[in-house]
Amino acid sequence: MAAFFLRLTFLHMSTNQFDKKSQAWSALFSEPMSELVQRYTASVDFDQRLWRADIAGSLAHASMLATQGVISEQDRSEIERGMSQISKEIEGGDFEWKLALEDVHLNIEARLTQLIGDAGKRLHTGRSRNDQVATDIRLWLRDEIDLIAGLLRELQGALIEVAEKNVEVILPGFTHLQVAQPVSFAHHLLAYVEMFSRDEARMADVRKRVNQLPLGSAALAGTTYPLDRELVARTLGMEGVCQNSLDAVSDRDFAIEFSAASSLVMVHISRLSEELILWMSQNFGFIKIADRFTTGSSIMPQKKNPDVPELARGKTGRVVGHLMGLITLMKGQPLAYNKDNQEDKEPLFDIVDTVRDTLRIFVEMIAGQLDAQTGSRQGGITVNAPAMEQAALKGYATATDLADYLVKKGLPFRDAHETVAHAVKAAQSHNCDLSELPLAVLQGFHPDIEKDVYEVLSLRGSLNARNTLGGTAPAQVRAQITRHKARLGVAS
Amino acid sequence: MAAFFLRLTFLHMSTNQFDKKSQAWSALFSEPMSELVQRYTASVDFDQRLWRADIAGSLAHASMLATQGVISEQDRSEIERGMSQISKEIEGGDFEWKLALEDVHLNIEARLTQLIGDAGKRLHTGRSRNDQVATDIRLWLRDEIDLIAGLLRELQGALIEVAEKNVEVILPGFTHLQVAQPVSFAHHLLAYVEMFSRDEARMADVRKRVNQLPLGSAALAGTTYPLDRELVARTLGMEGVCQNSLDAVSDRDFAIEFSAASSLVMVHISRLSEELILWMSQNFGFIKIADRFTTGSSIMPQKKNPDVPELARGKTGRVVGHLMGLITLMKGQPLAYNKDNQEDKEPLFDIVDTVRDTLRIFVEMIAGQLDAQTGSRQGGITVNAPAMEQAALKGYATATDLADYLVKKGLPFRDAHETVAHAVKAAQSHNCDLSELPLAVLQGFHPDIEKDVYEVLSLRGSLNARNTLGGTAPAQVRAQITRHKARLGVAS
Amino acid sequence: MAAFFLRLTFLHMSTNQFDKKSQAWSALFSEPMSELVQRYTASVDFDQRLWRADIAGSLAHASMLATQGVISEQDRSEIERGMSQISKEIEGGDFEWKLALEDVHLNIEARLTQLIGDAGKRLHTGRSRNDQVATDIRLWLRDEIDLIAGLLRELQGALIEVAEKNVEVILPGFTHLQVAQPVSFAHHLLAYVEMFSRDEARMADVRKRVNQLPLGSAALAGTTYPLDRELVARTLGMEGVCQNSLDAVSDRDFAIEFSAASSLVMVHISRLSEELILWMSQNFGFIKIADRFTTGSSIMPQKKNPDVPELARGKTGRVVGHLMGLITLMKGQPLAYNKDNQEDKEPLFDIVDTVRDTLRIFVEMIAGQLDAQTGSRQGGITVNAPAMEQAALKGYATATDLADYLVKKGLPFRDAHETVAHAVKAAQSHNCDLSELPLAVLQGFHPDIEKDVYEVLSLRGSLNARNTLGGTAPAQVRAQITRHKARLGVAS
Amino acid sequence: MAAFFLRLTFLHMSTNQFDKKSQAWSALFSEPMSELVQRYTASVDFDQRLWRADIAGSLAHASMLATQGVISEQDRSEIERGMSQISKEIEGGDFEWKLALEDVHLNIEARLTQLIGDAGKRLHTGRSRNDQVATDIRLWLRDEIDLIAGLLRELQGALIEVAEKNVEVILPGFTHLQVAQPVSFAHHLLAYVEMFSRDEARMADVRKRVNQLPLGSAALAGTTYPLDRELVARTLGMEGVCQNSLDAVSDRDFAIEFSAASSLVMVHISRLSEELILWMSQNFGFIKIADRFTTGSSIMPQKKNPDVPELARGKTGRVVGHLMGLITLMKGQPLAYNKDNQEDKEPLFDIVDTVRDTLRIFVEMIAGQLDAQTGSRQGGITVNAPAMEQAALKGYATATDLADYLVKKGLPFRDAHETVAHAVKAAQSHNCDLSELPLAVLQGFHPDIEKDVYEVLSLRGSLNARNTLGGTAPAQVRAQITRHKARLGVAS
Repeated sequence: MAAFFLRLTFLHMSTNQFDKKSQAWSALFSEPMSELVQRYTASVDFDQRLWRADIAGSLAHASMLATQGVISEQDRSEIERGMSQISKEIEGGDFEWKLALEDVHLNIEARLTQLIGDAGKRLHTGRSRNDQVATDIRLWLRDEIDLIAGLLRELQGALIEVAEKNVEVILPGFTHLQVAQPVSFAHHLLAYVEMFSRDEARMADVRKRVNQLPLGSAALAGTTYPLDRELVARTLGMEGVCQNSLDAVSDRDFAIEFSAASSLVMVHISRLSEELILWMSQNFGFIKIADRFTTGSSIMPQKKNPDVPELARGKTGRVVGHLMGLITLMKGQPLAYNKDNQEDKEPLFDIVDTVRDTLRIFVEMIAGQLDAQTGSRQGGITVNAPAMEQAALKGYATATDLADYLVKKGLPFRDAHETVAHAVKAAQSHNCDLSELPLAVLQGFHPDIEKDVYEVLSLRGSLNARNTLGGTAPAQVRAQITRHKARLGVAS
Repeated sequence: MAAFFLRLTFLHMSTNQFDKKSQAWSALFSEPMSELVQRYTASVDFDQRLWRADIAGSLAHASMLATQGVISEQDRSEIERGMSQISKEIEGGDFEWKLALEDVHLNIEARLTQLIGDAGKRLHTGRSRNDQVATDIRLWLRDEIDLIAGLLRELQGALIEVAEKNVEVILPGFTHLQVAQPVSFAHHLLAYVEMFSRDEARMADVRKRVNQLPLGSAALAGTTYPLDRELVARTLGMEGVCQNSLDAVSDRDFAIEFSAASSLVMVHISRLSEELILWMSQNFGFIKIADRFTTGSSIMPQKKNPDVPELARGKTGRVVGHLMGLITLMKGQPLAYNKDNQEDKEPLFDIVDTVRDTLRIFVEMIAGQLDAQTGSRQGGITVNAPAMEQAALKGYATATDLADYLVKKGLPFRDAHETVAHAVKAAQSHNCDLSELPLAVLQGFHPDIEKDVYEVLSLRGSLNARNTLGGTAPAQVRAQITRHKARLGVAS
Repeated sequence: MAAFFLRLTFLHMSTNQFDKKSQAWSALFSEPMSELVQRYTASVDFDQRLWRADIAGSLAHASMLATQGVISEQDRSEIERGMSQISKEIEGGDFEWKLALEDVHLNIEARLTQLIGDAGKRLHTGRSRNDQVATDIRLWLRDEIDLIAGLLRELQGALIEVAEKNVEVILPGFTHLQVAQPVSFAHHLLAYVEMFSRDEARMADVRKRVNQLPLGSAALAGTTYPLDRELVARTLGMEGVCQNSLDAVSDRDFAIEFSAASSLVMVHISRLSEELILWMSQNFGFIKIADRFTTGSSIMPQKKNPDVPELARGKTGRVVGHLMGLITLMKGQPLAYNKDNQEDKEPLFDIVDTVRDTLRIFVEMIAGQLDAQTGSRQGGITVNAPAMEQAALKGYATATDLADYLVKKGLPFRDAHETVAHAVKAAQSHNCDLSELPLAVLQGFHPDIEKDVYEVLSLRGSLNARNTLGGTAPAQVRAQITRHKARLGVAS
Repeated sequence: MAAFFLRLTFLHMSTNQFDKKSQAWSALFSEPMSELVQRYTASVDFDQRLWRADIAGSLAHASMLATQGVISEQDRSEIERGMSQISKEIEGGDFEWKLALEDVHLNIEARLTQLIGDAGKRLHTGRSRNDQVATDIRLWLRDEIDLIAGLLRELQGALIEVAEKNVEVILPGFTHLQVAQPVSFAHHLLAYVEMFSRDEARMADVRKRVNQLPLGSAALAGTTYPLDRELVARTLGMEGVCQNSLDAVSDRDFAIEFSAASSLVMVHISRLSEELILWMSQNFGFIKIADRFTTGSSIMPQKKNPDVPELARGKTGRVVGHLMGLITLMKGQPLAYNKDNQEDKEPLFDIVDTVRDTLRIFVEMIAGQLDAQTGSRQGGITVNAPAMEQAALKGYATATDLADYLVKKGLPFRDAHETVAHAVKAAQSHNCDLSELPLAVLQGFHPDIEKDVYEVLSLRGSLNARNTLGGTAPAQVRAQITRHKARLGVAS
């Protein structure tokens, strides 16, 4: 495969297609792109965000090309020098992004050629923008997934921190938003820890399929140069190489899969938000969130509105919308790359921003800001335990306990259930709780009821009794907290 | 209702809530909003786009307040002066938008108060941001709908222009992408005129429901000031007044309805795009689009890719995604205004931009650029009539005509259909068209077939025969073109 | 238009393609459809629901064919006789639907031919299943829209009925689910009347575009027979004729538009459901719904769950999902008819069923069952007015009224707003309402506050003061009720 | 935990809530559910499909209850006997499903109690329908996932089988549906193998999260009985136990995740369908599918339509719609179980049916029916290799090869690209292929071009040259086939 780069120096054509982009794509085109079309089709306004990945990918490619003898070591070192300069320019805000150069790839390549000449023109050997953009977006997304996974862990940590302080606080557990049974407030928060830990696991699964290398697939069919794709993958920290060039350039499964995983994150956020909003409503009054997460009203002087959870709930729509947009995008596309695919980026960028910002703000809203000195958090939600307990007394939350009591006395569960329904009806007509019915009255419903029933009918008695794996008894909740902390590597 | 504004002058408090926004919302708040929260909840980055509508709404409100004696004429004139100054600043790019002031409304109001003092502080009398933003977005959207409706008419005009030149051009009409029957290429283009004319009608229906005034609903319950809401509606050119204050501030039906109508526009664009892409593919070769609507490849020197129709097809996903996002947003929201609703704007803005750009670019791509001097368009699609006609000969497109011929000879349609199936089978085995079978062979399938059958079996004979309302016969197509031109007010 | 049907009698082929469907489609096919394929592609399982529309369309077609001399009067009368027989068989459950005959159209046509022979075979003259199915679905949908529009009016009537009894009942009006200002419960219900009246208007707009006749477009290109399409349209009560045959057979806009309108109905239902569920929760306790709309728990004997509103809220997803499905279906389809379109029916059927059932059940749940004798409704929601009023006292709901009071004393609104924020803070620290602060304390915030302020600070004072168009003052609410009743034709 | 079941025998209440379901839920309800509500809220019409899972779950629960001493061994054996009888009744079609008993769970439990008396009433001890239905749906879905994974493997096998026969067949590789570079038809098919293998991997990931046990969470808070949940999980072959009772009963992540994975399967199917439809179109003519996968037209006697791929493409909308519906369903739901969740089943059922049927039919359509005797498949797609190769000659598919040739001569890639554009332009103007330009003409574009260029410009030369990992060279394609067969356990 040899040293075919030896004759490079004497050849020097003064133009290439970039110099003429403002006129026409190549010699084949009889007119330049119209300005409207340029604006419509260009992506550089948004895809410049991929610049770090684009440069990392180019450097790995160049390095491999040199190793394989496709370009010279000198070319490689020029490319590195040029890219280093470009990185500095972009970071410093000095890089001039040109719409006429369409996208991040051509902008960087054109600048590189400007800086280092022919070596820059050799960088694109054995690749195409089709495999280049697929590589960039995967590299970028992989790193964003890592950030999101970290934030999901932080949010779990925040919930656990608040849970730990509220194991014995009794909340009315609802089904159908009707009082059902008393639960530990910590137990309720840990339900969200489960959700966010599943999200973390899903992100890890998505990551495996994101972290595969398309580069080397060229336009669609592979390339005639002796590339070592596995070397490039290793250089970039990727787990594998896309095994089919047509698939590699046209596949956007990973974008859809990431969007679906993110939609679930936001569905969980929307559920938690719904509850925070309810709990803050005057008719509940269970919690307060710190003033800095609320806003006032331009007209009503008394208002403190839970803007952050409401907006987060609303942003669910945004992420779900992007998921639907991406699926619609890919439906029915023939192989291989089509321009439709360019539309994958903006939704992904917006999802990543939305999910990151939302998770970050929820960590602080739930558990408070991290005090760098003490390492502890301050200013999270304020829990009004008496209000919660008071609310738990409103809906005969211990009725099931009475049924279970009767089962332990020998009644089949179905009969016990019906017996208790009668008791509840009586209590309702006296406008009192079950625990306020005199023993004689209770015994009227079933003769085996004894004095120990009042222990069963108390909120705390009910709570403590649900002492099996996954149940709400404080002992179980503490065991779960310990498990979660071990899993997350948080000190107990 | 009187002159309660008389004592304004002596009172002058030096602070109001805006001055302290960087500290806290009002006296009620113990801490300022965190920077992260500010960024998360602020909308000024995107809603500043509503500034014209915001100012128009404020001026109509102020004018009415003065007419009703709620503010003085002098206040009103100060407000007009201030707003005029602000308009100039924004247009000139000199207006400083502040994130700390959250949104377009507070930014403008704060600047107004800075410019004109107490009169500015009186502008918000009898309104709230809840009804203000609903008014702004409706005013803005109404005008955008008018622009879109105009572009829909332009696109219909462009299609008709090309159709008019191609009435006699024969295209293979497909069902199931299999050759079905010959159709006029003009007839095919007019199918899209029908679609875009329905879109226009739908936009007109949406407009009725958009063009209603929420202002005067205040936060949610109406106001204690003697507003004349119908006067404000007239001033703003609105067709009516929202009749229920709770609904007025929380309704986003119009946004969803507009998004659904826009999704249909894009579905039609996606169908047309799909066909343009097919027709440009080498295996069809039916049309070319001008070079300025195509791009090349970074690797394959021979490529001219139909980027514009592909991207437009892809952008369907974007608009549909926003529709889904908006529905998700509104699902299950209790009355009245919730912060979730702030998420209505970005999707709407993006839909409007996408639909407008797409329609504009399609007008030019189909019919060419308008020559200001001649008033005619140049550089639209190039039609390869022979390739179309050649393709129409490939799939026994006149088989139905043979069946109809037999029906006219007395066969029941179902029998004729089966008879022709046999004839097609024979032609396939001879690898020839039905019209190439000798008369004797045809008569073998049915004795009543006579020499005049060959007229029926020709593409043009088939085309001309479909001469009923809505059919593809050139006479019908010309009648439709005349009808459309009259409808659109285009000279014939 | 000649007597080409005269020779019908002597010709009689013993087979047509239906007889052989179990073997193969026509002579052209070398093997029958596999059973799996038959099940996959057949639609008769669900589209038999269209039978009435299918027969109505066929009768109108046959009648026109006879008028135009394409078939004989005798054929027409045979067809009518046959169809009458088939209608009876279907209504009586005696019709045998055959999967092998694919769809409702072929099933009916095959039976017709079985019953009346050749006349049946002539019915399909000048039409295709493509225009036939489009006609059927439009006829069917038009009638369903009329039913839904009627139910939307019934639901508005039900809400008005309850509103009328609750004009003076005070509910805490929420924004951000925080107590904002007192509103009339009737006013709140009328917000939903606005929503459902918009839905009704949207359905009327959709209906216009549904009620157009595709028949006569045949497969895709029109037909060679001298059809009078406008006559068929008149016979079927349609408002117009689809003007382009390609569009007529491939257009499914109307299905998407109807689904979008239905999604908005369900979004409104979901919002109302959310509120009903909240209001029934023990922490609100604002209303009860009748036991027959609730269910119990298999484990918790005390439960009465608001299953109906919850399920309705859930069913929003179903309808929105179908909208998404239909848009995905149509995206990117080339003209004309493709088999994809068969997938339009099941979502439409399910949407219609869901919307109809939901509206029906909401009418009864809100206003109760209609007593046929008295004509009044009984058993609707039970309102707990004291609980509502109690809740309205919790969140300083009259703070805005105090600000407005100060404005009327001469303060600019922005200063008044800040002054009241201080007053609220003071009241909070004393754990009392604004109206419970002594006059001297209030005057400490502003010297112009006088004794009449207490009127302003009362819930009822606040309510009555919002007496402008669309506001919550009882006078306004009563005016709205009168307007709605006139609009709906309900006696006042 | 003792023998509290000892006293069972003497107590025998004659009624339980099931006996009175036709009247009212329990003693607490003053009226029965209305018939309309019953129909609206009941799920037995569709959830009876879960019966096997329901019985399996009940048996595992009963067995554990007996092991833990909560019920007697005799009870357990009675329950087994009863369930065995019920299984037979259901399988035999003799089971009477009652709408009044709402769902599959109560129908089976009621019948059980009818059959075995009090033991049946004890089955529900320590569980609720909330955890029961979550368990059922997970068990059912796990098994369906296994079936789908198997079908995904079969489809990969089918594609590989066809690929193996077509390694040397040259297809025009498209980007933007414009001829790009020649590819092996086998390579193209293997792109879909990649997609479906990713689908398989995703299903495996989903399965992990589906296969977790909610049972033992009871209504929402856990239970007071000494359950051994891990024993139940082992009995049912589940990988773990849901660790939080509130989450366990309200989580539907797994349904959404499965729907998202299924949507991707259908997106892939839609892409393959699009290509099959294109390839069958007369203008391509690349393949035929067997007649039994096509249908004819009711009007056009010559038609053979690719109904199966079209319908499959359409069904993508259906599955995507369900995904959207499920997300909408869960958005914003507070904990724990709400009735909304009942709406999870029908979409899941429909997705499973759609995906299974579609995969099954695609296996046969691609590779043909399995001949049980020979073990080979017959009657799959027919490949027209000459048509494919002919089409590959239409679009200068080897232009990139010429550029690469020049790079190997020392030109920087960007200069080579521009040089070739000039050559293509010249060839276009002579209406010939690059390979048809005389050497002298080619040398006019660059002097280093030599005679060996014609090898490079041939389709086969181009194909063979792309011989790196993932490329289209036959050697690479054969290596991939070997890899896939090993992975799938298919004999080479």
